[in-house]
Amino acid sequence: MLQTLSTFDLLVVGCDVLVRQDSRYIVVNDRDIAITGNRIAAISPAEAIDRAQAREVIDASGLLAIPGLINCHTHAPMVLFRGLAEDVTIESWFNDYIWPLESNEEPEDIYWGALLAIAEMIQSGVTTFADHYFFCDQIAEAVTESGMRANIGWAVFGHEGERKLDQTVAFAQRWQGGAGGRITTWLAPHSPYLCDRNFLALTAQRARALNTGIHIHCSETHDQVALSLKQHGVTPPALLQQAGVLDVPVLLAHGIGLTPEDIAMLKDYDVAVAQCPKTYMKLAMGTAPVRAMREAGIVVGIGTDGVVSSNTLDVLEQMRLLALDQKQAARDSTTMPLQEVLAIAFAGGAAALHLPDIGELAEGKLADIALLRQDGAHLFPRYDAIANLVYSARAGDVDTVICDGKLLMRYGRLLTIDLPRVKAEIARRLQRLNQRVAEKRLATYPT
Amino acid sequence: MLQTLSTFDLLVVGCDVLVRQDSRYIVVNDRDIAITGNRIAAISPAEAIDRAQAREVIDASGLLAIPGLINCHTHAPMVLFRGLAEDVTIESWFNDYIWPLESNEEPEDIYWGALLAIAEMIQSGVTTFADHYFFCDQIAEAVTESGMRANIGWAVFGHEGERKLDQTVAFAQRWQGGAGGRITTWLAPHSPYLCDRNFLALTAQRARALNTGIHIHCSETHDQVALSLKQHGVTPPALLQQAGVLDVPVLLAHGIGLTPEDIAMLKDYDVAVAQCPKTYMKLAMGTAPVRAMREAGIVVGIGTDGVVSSNTLDVLEQMRLLALDQKQAARDSTTMPLQEVLAIAFAGGAAALHLPDIGELAEGKLADIALLRQDGAHLFPRYDAIANLVYSARAGDVDTVICDGKLLMRYGRLLTIDLPRVKAEIARRLQRLNQRVAEKRLATYPT
Repeated sequence: MLQTLSTFDLLVVGCDVLVRQDSRYIVVNDRDIAITGNRIAAISPAEAIDRAQAREVIDASGLLAIPGLINCHTHAPMVLFRGLAEDVTIESWFNDYIWPLESNEEPEDIYWGALLAIAEMIQSGVTTFADHYFFCDQIAEAVTESGMRANIGWAVFGHEGERKLDQTVAFAQRWQGGAGGRITTWLAPHSPYLCDRNFLALTAQRARALNTGIHIHCSETHDQVALSLKQHGVTPPALLQQAGVLDVPVLLAHGIGLTPEDIAMLKDYDVAVAQCPKTYMKLAMGTAPVRAMREAGIVVGIGTDGVVSSNTLDVLEQMRLLALDQKQAARDSTTMPLQEVLAIAFAGGAAALHLPDIGELAEGKLADIALLRQDGAHLFPRYDAIANLVYSARAGDVDTVICDGKLLMRYGRLLTIDLPRVKAEIARRLQRLNQRVAEKRLATYPT
Repeated sequence: MLQTLSTFDLLVVGCDVLVRQDSRYIVVNDRDIAITGNRIAAISPAEAIDRAQAREVIDASGLLAIPGLINCHTHAPMVLFRGLAEDVTIESWFNDYIWPLESNEEPEDIYWGALLAIAEMIQSGVTTFADHYFFCDQIAEAVTESGMRANIGWAVFGHEGERKLDQTVAFAQRWQGGAGGRITTWLAPHSPYLCDRNFLALTAQRARALNTGIHIHCSETHDQVALSLKQHGVTPPALLQQAGVLDVPVLLAHGIGLTPEDIAMLKDYDVAVAQCPKTYMKLAMGTAPVRAMREAGIVVGIGTDGVVSSNTLDVLEQMRLLALDQKQAARDSTTMPLQEVLAIAFAGGAAALHLPDIGELAEGKLADIALLRQDGAHLFPRYDAIANLVYSARAGDVDTVICDGKLLMRYGRLLTIDLPRVKAEIARRLQRLNQRVAEKRLATYPT
């Protein structure tokens, strides 16, 4: 019988695989993962699938396959400013550094910055990110070329007005379902402290009309909550509720200052909260009530935030820090156990971005996969492969990355991004980008 | 003129170098580091030294040279139990896991465990560690063979009595200055909560006679302090003072529960405190008053603790966590700035171990050097090489490691340890080692 077509496009052979079984994560050994198009066709015991059936075979022996990591909240192109705002207060961070620096940005900077950020994420095993930034057409171009998956929201401040909002709406329409479905778009008003009630209501209206979601900073610190109570008589989430923002899917960034009443209210909406603990620790912002959110049934995912606060786009590190910060803050070493960390990182990330087909390695799911080396001394013995993944593995262990069925990195080599060229292009822009003129800041952080 | 001997044994060419200038750390670019014997002979602008003068030349272009990292407190062979005690309370951690597990250990296990730990440390850029464990002859053998530098103390519990103490003293005598000077030995009574006043006094006597120091756990938690006050009427450091322990050089592990009075008292002694923040966070132990210690002039260094609490022997990660945990606990993002983190990690580590010739790259210092790659996307741009080192670099960036003038790892390949063989030897022992029989525990954690 003549067979001219391969059954599978890609066959990843002989790896260990992190899977979910009865809502627990376990690692199964010696599996082959078969991919057809952009989806996982089968996960089988090694050598159960004939290699001749596959167009391409990747030897993954010794590697651990995990779902591609999901970065639920970042400002990817901020890599352009990595290391420029160290050891400062959060007010100074915004007013003296970030917003003056960002006023220097031109669209083409963003394109190169996004590529650098995506390169870093691929090298760290991340295959999906939710971005909240400016000049998003350039980010979408970088996502398209690099093979990455992203949810993109064009950040807008209330003072920029309805016309600017509509430009971000136009972006969202232009790119929804872009890059062969790898791009989704949400609206991205900055925050309740920089968007007034009317502007938020207008944004919610636009989101409803577009049938899309909203990605917004909310209750980032306890001070912000106090200010909101003083200025508006309600907490930031209550303001979002009043403005109708919660009537569409919402991704809240941070939520450190969420009150028990906020949580009781938010649980009745389609709301998820992104946790970026490295930023919270580095800027001494406090610890979010993650356990209370989870107990209320609110979806929690992990983000890296932008690198000017967190320095890296390393989701593995953020997973570890989430557990460590939650345990330390609760003075309870049994809180935030390994299974919960994984549930937040993977199932939580997928749910937060309304992308139910990522975050899990199983037949029919999208083929977004990170393969990690396990031969470092720091990963032996392997009594508990999940403990090793959460507390010992590091981004440097990532060997091969697949997104939407396509190889983005193989054996440590980036395949879709010319990193030396990206660095050279950015290097030419650094001196212009790093000027700080206070009067040129994009916005002002209220205190 | 005939020159038959090379002037330098090793010439590391073209790297960036972390140096100290006027008590600030800076990175200087494009340098060659010349090594003669086990010391740094010169650090010169690139190509100022004729390569023909060196017996061996290492191309280090693009790499960042930092002093070999110093791990001031660990229990290296605990790598044998990595991942076996996750998400448990500190009482259960000791009583249900660690001490029953450790009762399974035989001397040869320790030899292989120490080699695995040293391999991990070399891969992470660590060149010196202070170990507090059992069967220390086997640790010393592993240090000798691997080319590492170590301060080793044989842990002893008060209930084991004077005879056992004297065996640890004999070890200290046997190995002081061993491995060509790379090994120093201190005494290592476990803690004030497991060594009574008489036993501590006896240990202090032996340390004085040997002219050596003491490495001991102290005030690890606030509960321990409360228990000491109840049982002895004094805090743990005061008990050490009464027993004469503070009359010799002392390295205290942890000190989370140190009181302001303890700190005011300790500053008049030759005392250093090792900080292992990953353990503190993972076991929810609280945060040590590091700023107060430093303001009082007490030396602080960084340790990893054993991997059953911290999962890795990664000092870079602990540096970052020290800063993050201190900032978060103080609710002050300006505390523990970059320069202080480096001062603790390098100058502090060297002072804590009484090894003034490590921890700094300068002419005449010991040639203990870690060379890190800087080509990862996570390390670009390099506006602030020190911020990148503390907050972005990861152990996986370590490329080449030199200790005492000898190469231990080159271009990512371990040169002195056969890691696959070490793993195979340990694999044969795992099933025996991981049995837990409560009655067989080494000691009991008091509550």
